Amino acid sequence: MIIGLIGFGVVSQNLFRLIKSEDIQFITSFENRSSKTIENIKKTDILVLDSFKDVASKSDILISATSPNSALDVAKQYGKFTKGIYLDLNNISPDTTFEIRNHVDNLVDGAIIGKIDSDNPILYLSGDKSDELLFLDEFITTEKISNNIGDVAILKLLRSSYTKTLSAILIESSQIAKSHDLEDEFFDILTLTEGQEFREKSISRINNTLNNSKRKSEELEEIIQYFDDNDLTMTKAALKKLNQ
Amino acid sequence: MIIGLIGFGVVSQNLFRLIKSEDIQFITSFENRSSKTIENIKKTDILVLDSFKDVASKSDILISATSPNSALDVAKQYGKFTKGIYLDLNNISPDTTFEIRNHVDNLVDGAIIGKIDSDNPILYLSGDKSDELLFLDEFITTEKISNNIGDVAILKLLRSSYTKTLSAILIESSQIAKSHDLEDEFFDILTLTEGQEFREKSISRINNTLNNSKRKSEELEEIIQYFDDNDLTMTKAALKKLNQ
Repeated sequence: MIIGLIGFGVVSQNLFRLIKSEDIQFITSFENRSSKTIENIKKTDILVLDSFKDVASKSDILISATSPNSALDVAKQYGKFTKGIYLDLNNISPDTTFEIRNHVDNLVDGAIIGKIDSDNPILYLSGDKSDELLFLDEFITTEKISNNIGDVAILKLLRSSYTKTLSAILIESSQIAKSHDLEDEFFDILTLTEGQEFREKSISRINNTLNNSKRKSEELEEIIQYFDDNDLTMTKAALKKLNQ
Repeated sequence: MIIGLIGFGVVSQNLFRLIKSEDIQFITSFENRSSKTIENIKKTDILVLDSFKDVASKSDILISATSPNSALDVAKQYGKFTKGIYLDLNNISPDTTFEIRNHVDNLVDGAIIGKIDSDNPILYLSGDKSDELLFLDEFITTEKISNNIGDVAILKLLRSSYTKTLSAILIESSQIAKSHDLEDEFFDILTLTEGQEFREKSISRINNTLNNSKRKSEELEEIIQYFDDNDLTMTKAALKKLNQ
């Protein structure tokens, strides 16, 4: 079996590290790659072809893991050349996923949740061709969500909405606590019911959100746009909070 | 040492169960008590005096654990008769706590966090007389927050604000997930980062909030009123959400 990689960032590097089998040959190309990426690929035994067109046409599974902005272009350029499964692992919206479906046969919509470089990330898949990728469970926990392309992208948005809104609450509550000189005690008292990791996790969430508030706001705006048929009282409040 | 109990509900019953020592005698009164409470007291070896005035005057520690609505009246009626410490364990606002201070010497502001009938509830105390109650740590984990009367009441509000706002987010996110037929998967995917108990805890929070939304709304209104010097974007959104 041949797995083609378009993109060789953290996701591809870790998939290559995790999926070790004599029956699987990874292939990629240096085409338009940065010198740093070329160096990283040279350190591996990945087979390097002349072009991504070649990679696409030779792959049983073609993995697109580049960047949200280029995901659609990659699909348009190379999707048509593969007869295998096209697994999109970019962090893209449901709408982009639906658009990619128009350019690619055998699309599978995927996401890795949990830290990819930890021991227990999970690869979530949706689309009816997901079944053919369940053998990956041997290398990385792999779960099929449904036959519906886009369901993994929707789940990512839901998760992102929940965690960002939660961060907004943590920011608000801890700031009120701080204004009463009770910040430490606030975390102590909640640790009792929220679990031992509450303080560390919360402070990391607060800092991560405050340090990246512009990007987080943009992501919240996308979420609000996508789910606008639903009541979004809390999500909209989180956006307001982050924009303060 | 004599501990007087005004109120014999869940809090007093469990304190009586936890605080077992040959050196400690509990006292209370049947005055104006319901027949059910009288029965409950009769099952114990608590010494019963004719009146709460007697209970107050004989107690080294007088514990008020009745109801939020009667806490101030109890303090006004009996607080003046005790020379000991007056420990208020009612679920009252910081403002009510401050008012009680005007009627009671040696006030300690307390709260039990975590389920009182579990093995690990914590008794939080504030006020400079708290030090004299730290011996209770032998029977129930006891922590002093500060010398400031009202700090425990403020912490309770902060905790209540956080958990109610979190419930509002869970309601919103899970409803959106449900509308996309992805409710189970939403809980699955968040369990990865939020911990094994996420689903069970979240569903319990959602149901508890939806089944008691009127009371939760009222509590949120009190919180908003008390903290109105702070930015309350998220807390106000939670109130709006609960009132829908």
